[in-house]
Amino acid sequence: MDPYLLSRAVSELGELLRVNSAMLVTAESCTGGLLASTLTDTPGSSDWFAGSVVAYSNSVKQNVLGVPESVLEQHGAVSEACVLAMADGVIRTLGADYSVAISGVAGPSGGSPDKPVGTVWMAWAWPGGSRARLYNFQGSRDQVKHQSVVAAINGLLGAVR
Amino acid sequence: MDPYLLSRAVSELGELLRVNSAMLVTAESCTGGLLASTLTDTPGSSDWFAGSVVAYSNSVKQNVLGVPESVLEQHGAVSEACVLAMADGVIRTLGADYSVAISGVAGPSGGSPDKPVGTVWMAWAWPGGSRARLYNFQGSRDQVKHQSVVAAINGLLGAVR
Repeated sequence: MDPYLLSRAVSELGELLRVNSAMLVTAESCTGGLLASTLTDTPGSSDWFAGSVVAYSNSVKQNVLGVPESVLEQHGAVSEACVLAMADGVIRTLGADYSVAISGVAGPSGGSPDKPVGTVWMAWAWPGGSRARLYNFQGSRDQVKHQSVVAAINGLLGAVR
Repeated sequence: MDPYLLSRAVSELGELLRVNSAMLVTAESCTGGLLASTLTDTPGSSDWFAGSVVAYSNSVKQNVLGVPESVLEQHGAVSEACVLAMADGVIRTLGADYSVAISGVAGPSGGSPDKPVGTVWMAWAWPGGSRARLYNFQGSRDQVKHQSVVAAINGLLGAVR
């Protein structure tokens, strides 16, 4: 996505959160903090963005975000159950109203027949609800990260509107 | 810094951590996750990078990283005492051997005569020690973030070597 359009989408998201006096947090695995960094490129984002847990290791997913060990064992870190737990967990841990959680295979390694490179699970949580969605992105590690950030922001716009 | 040289510096850092079987975490305020994202642009970084707490709000600095309320009241979030507490806190919270913490005024607003835009405090912690340093960067919000990331990585190379 064009950087200008992405920045406009973030500004719109920020305005929607601001008028609702709502705070946003993120829980990021494969994007590694790129979503939080993109959101905070917008001046004034501290009004509506509280922070992020970049949960790169499974121990951080478990110990900081409260993802159950059984979820990681039975479904793996790149799964619907894991991102739903991360999205709930980051709201509990950091304190906020809205969240998005991202876990995927950015590549170039780490892919499998079941979950090839570009497989990304994402979940959004809001007061009283949550939903998850599976993406199959194409491209390099950078491109998978970038497409994940765009999808996360679009999903947030849908959740907050 | 040239993206290629930055990527080389991250690869060298990763190799040093890997041979020491050491894990790294970051605590980021003004960089908003850009450091974690830059570190995880390198494939295989999950071997030596556990995660990050992007502590954009003071409540996350206090409640998740354990920065004492008295530090925030007496010295503010952009201070030596705050980044030292963040660097220790993120090791406790996420579990790791090395950390870097960053808190500064990225601009364009938020500056003051005492702490103009570009004022960035940084602290590195390692097994048995820590140190902090003050930077006065010039430029736009993006440029302050980028220079902070480069300085953080250079400081980590010094700490790990």
